[in-house]
Amino acid sequence: MSKPKYAVIVEYIKDKIAKAEWAIGSQIPSQRELASQFQVNRSTVITALDELMADGLIEGVAGKGTIITNNTWTLMGRHAAVNWNDNVALGIHQASMNMVQEINEAESDPHFIQLSKGELSPDMFPLQTMKSIVRNVSEKLIPFGYEEPQGNRFLRESIADYLSERGVDVSPSSVLVVSGALQALHLISIGLLQQGSTVFLEKPSYVQSLSVFQSAGMTLKPIPMDAEGLRLDMTSPVKQKGKHVLYTNPTFHNPTGTLMPEQRRRELMAVCEKQQLPIIEDDVYRDLWIDAPPPPSLKSNDNYGNVLHLGSLSKTLSPGLRIGWVVGPESVISRLADLKMQSDYGSSTLSQLVAAEWLASGAYDDHLGHVRNDLTIRRRAVLEALETYLGDDAEWEIPRGGFFIWVRLNAAHHTGRLFQKAYARGIILNPGSIYAAPNGQYIRMSYANAGLEELEEGIYQLGQLMKQG
Amino acid sequence: MSKPKYAVIVEYIKDKIAKAEWAIGSQIPSQRELASQFQVNRSTVITALDELMADGLIEGVAGKGTIITNNTWTLMGRHAAVNWNDNVALGIHQASMNMVQEINEAESDPHFIQLSKGELSPDMFPLQTMKSIVRNVSEKLIPFGYEEPQGNRFLRESIADYLSERGVDVSPSSVLVVSGALQALHLISIGLLQQGSTVFLEKPSYVQSLSVFQSAGMTLKPIPMDAEGLRLDMTSPVKQKGKHVLYTNPTFHNPTGTLMPEQRRRELMAVCEKQQLPIIEDDVYRDLWIDAPPPPSLKSNDNYGNVLHLGSLSKTLSPGLRIGWVVGPESVISRLADLKMQSDYGSSTLSQLVAAEWLASGAYDDHLGHVRNDLTIRRRAVLEALETYLGDDAEWEIPRGGFFIWVRLNAAHHTGRLFQKAYARGIILNPGSIYAAPNGQYIRMSYANAGLEELEEGIYQLGQLMKQG
Ligand SMILES: Cc1ncc(COP(=O)(O)O)c(C=O)c1O
Ligand SMILES: Cc1ncc(COP(=O)(O)O)c(C=O)c1O
Repeated sequence: MSKPKYAVIVEYIKDKIAKAEWAIGSQIPSQRELASQFQVNRSTVITALDELMADGLIEGVAGKGTIITNNTWTLMGRHAAVNWNDNVALGIHQASMNMVQEINEAESDPHFIQLSKGELSPDMFPLQTMKSIVRNVSEKLIPFGYEEPQGNRFLRESIADYLSERGVDVSPSSVLVVSGALQALHLISIGLLQQGSTVFLEKPSYVQSLSVFQSAGMTLKPIPMDAEGLRLDMTSPVKQKGKHVLYTNPTFHNPTGTLMPEQRRRELMAVCEKQQLPIIEDDVYRDLWIDAPPPPSLKSNDNYGNVLHLGSLSKTLSPGLRIGWVVGPESVISRLADLKMQSDYGSSTLSQLVAAEWLASGAYDDHLGHVRNDLTIRRRAVLEALETYLGDDAEWEIPRGGFFIWVRLNAAHHTGRLFQKAYARGIILNPGSIYAAPNGQYIRMSYANAGLEELEEGIYQLGQLMKQG
Repeated sequence: MSKPKYAVIVEYIKDKIAKAEWAIGSQIPSQRELASQFQVNRSTVITALDELMADGLIEGVAGKGTIITNNTWTLMGRHAAVNWNDNVALGIHQASMNMVQEINEAESDPHFIQLSKGELSPDMFPLQTMKSIVRNVSEKLIPFGYEEPQGNRFLRESIADYLSERGVDVSPSSVLVVSGALQALHLISIGLLQQGSTVFLEKPSYVQSLSVFQSAGMTLKPIPMDAEGLRLDMTSPVKQKGKHVLYTNPTFHNPTGTLMPEQRRRELMAVCEKQQLPIIEDDVYRDLWIDAPPPPSLKSNDNYGNVLHLGSLSKTLSPGLRIGWVVGPESVISRLADLKMQSDYGSSTLSQLVAAEWLASGAYDDHLGHVRNDLTIRRRAVLEALETYLGDDAEWEIPRGGFFIWVRLNAAHHTGRLFQKAYARGIILNPGSIYAAPNGQYIRMSYANAGLEELEEGIYQLGQLMKQG
């Protein structure tokens, strides 16, 4: 005779509590979720929960759902267990915004059409070359332990060569290898900036840049953009030296796709030099130009050590490598290296060796050629679909590189509603609001990730939704 | 006609400044360092520095040495550049202690006899197996992008299996993959603990545990140890719930080598449950037992989700993989996973796949067998050498596993002085003071890293130095 269904649910939950996987004070899944997980009626779930309540293990709490109350503990006549959840809400670091978490989850669900994902399509992943490079690395392996604080020397040399081809003349001692550009921002925010510092940044800005600086206690000052990037007339004069920094992404900006022209770059450098405002230049999209190479980086015109320059292999090759770099004055780099050692003892040796091999062998440059071709085709397809299906309801600029088109919906539409409706149809898009965009009228559309047909299908569907109003 | 030597130095420094590798406000190398770098007399260096001073590029500052003053900037009639160095001292995170930095540098210098390094000898690196596992991984590769927040699923399953063989029964959803156990401590300190929280820990304790908690604004409360680990009679009662945590390394403790017996573990769990004190159990040395397997981990007796359990492949296989894990209640793990995403978007996919292959294939268990044999031989050799050369001047307990012997020098000796003298002879050791040891009479000796002959030679030399007094 098999167990009644409600008893299966009771055992499942008791086991979770016993194994301490569901902590005391934490919420259990909703009745609806449990019903669907166990393929039973809601009433069966309720029977199970009633039994657990009678056992004193769970409790309904107004506004919080059903909570685990750890009555095994009480029954044993001892004290209540610690409530780690108290800590969860109190940490220094903020949980990322709910909508961002929702998007993150949908982004790893292959059933969604990804109009959002800032990551190259798996189609563009250079699998054969990656395999042979990893195999090469395996053959050349020697015993490896903790790496040098600034990162593997061969990789730093390769990065210095890579940068010098792009007009940034540095030696390997000014390079710090990081586990992606995001880690660089994290290290800078906890190690170089003071609590209460002001971070000037583009409005809108890369979503993680907002949370990383805010979590470290910085004040954000978003600066409006125009078609050429940051509007210099909108920067307010900086008073206290050492209290302010500018974070900018001038080349194929995330999320707007904007490319800052050479003249604006020169003006920006002049303003920052005059204002004594150090710059964090996020240059992770540089290699993804489509029409023509972008103007030189801010770093390449930095004669005074004012610019910390960030790069990464995530956007061009694979984010799974977790390899990026920061370039700047040696004293700053060695401070950041010390912090990196204190937070994770350096990046994976295997990833560093594989990255170095990509850069040094020339395979990376070959690969970029393919990626640019592909992005050209994808951009064309998406622009055509936009014209066809959204031409009456939205407008946009043509991006000159990178992954994103920043689409402005006509006033009649509301992106929050559109997000929900599209989500219901299995389409995921990024509403401008999560980037601290000036108003709710934008969506960020990525042409880098979904297949060509999916891209067209997704945009067609959006068009339909908008016609419905 | 070749350039005069002083001019070579002038150009070298001008170039460093122009490239902004040496930032304004930073100190240039000392005259002695420059003289030795360029193989010239001190007077040639002085000629070069005089010229640079005349150019207005550098300046002597009392108590600070020679500083770069950025007069190119002034000469151009503009404003002074930003001084990143102002920021260096002000960040939230503290620079690691100077002596620790000195030791770190000597640890990557192969000319030193390493009596200090907490890392397996390269002789024990399983090079052939590592090569073939990396090759296997290369053959099975599929396109890889950003990983799931908690880490690669195959790896989490392998870790769950690994733990269940060690008496810790968890599902992969309670596991977070991290880039080494140190990163876990970093994430916990910025994400779960409140500023001003108290962290109880062993006195002495793993050196990075001190800096990571302190940098995040925690108060440390070191608890004395005896031969069985933490002394429970020394813990003061905890008042405020959610404000305190215990960090402990009960199995082959760093730096003392102490193994907490089963009875003490049970008592510790009872005290913490009673005091509602959550535990961070650092278990990175567990697999390195020599005489007999250690008692079960605290986590394996944790029925109430009070223990966050840390493990790592760094000590047993290779720290260059940067793979470790945290296990705990799901709500805590998902909070930490979210933070991990915000700080580096997850660990290297290649490292994760290689780690999973090691665990799942059984190669890891085979390798542990070899490591244990080797450590048995090394421990015996070091104990013999200690007896022979330091028998009159020091005492110690026999460690039952792990890497370290905690050597107590007789009162006549001073470890600070011994450290300096040994350093001068090319021997690097870790004085107890850096671990917040109770007094200056201890050194941590590692039998895991140097070759057998070097170990004996190093201990012989220490004996000589101590005979000299
Ligand atoms: C502007 C920008 N900077 C940095 C990153 C971080 O990339 P990674 O940490 O993978 O190098 C991203 C990725 O989304 C980005 O868009
Ligand atoms: C007690 C202890 N915990 C954690 C670590 C960190 O190791 P990893 O971050 O390489 O896993 C070490 C390494 O020295 C250690 O001794």
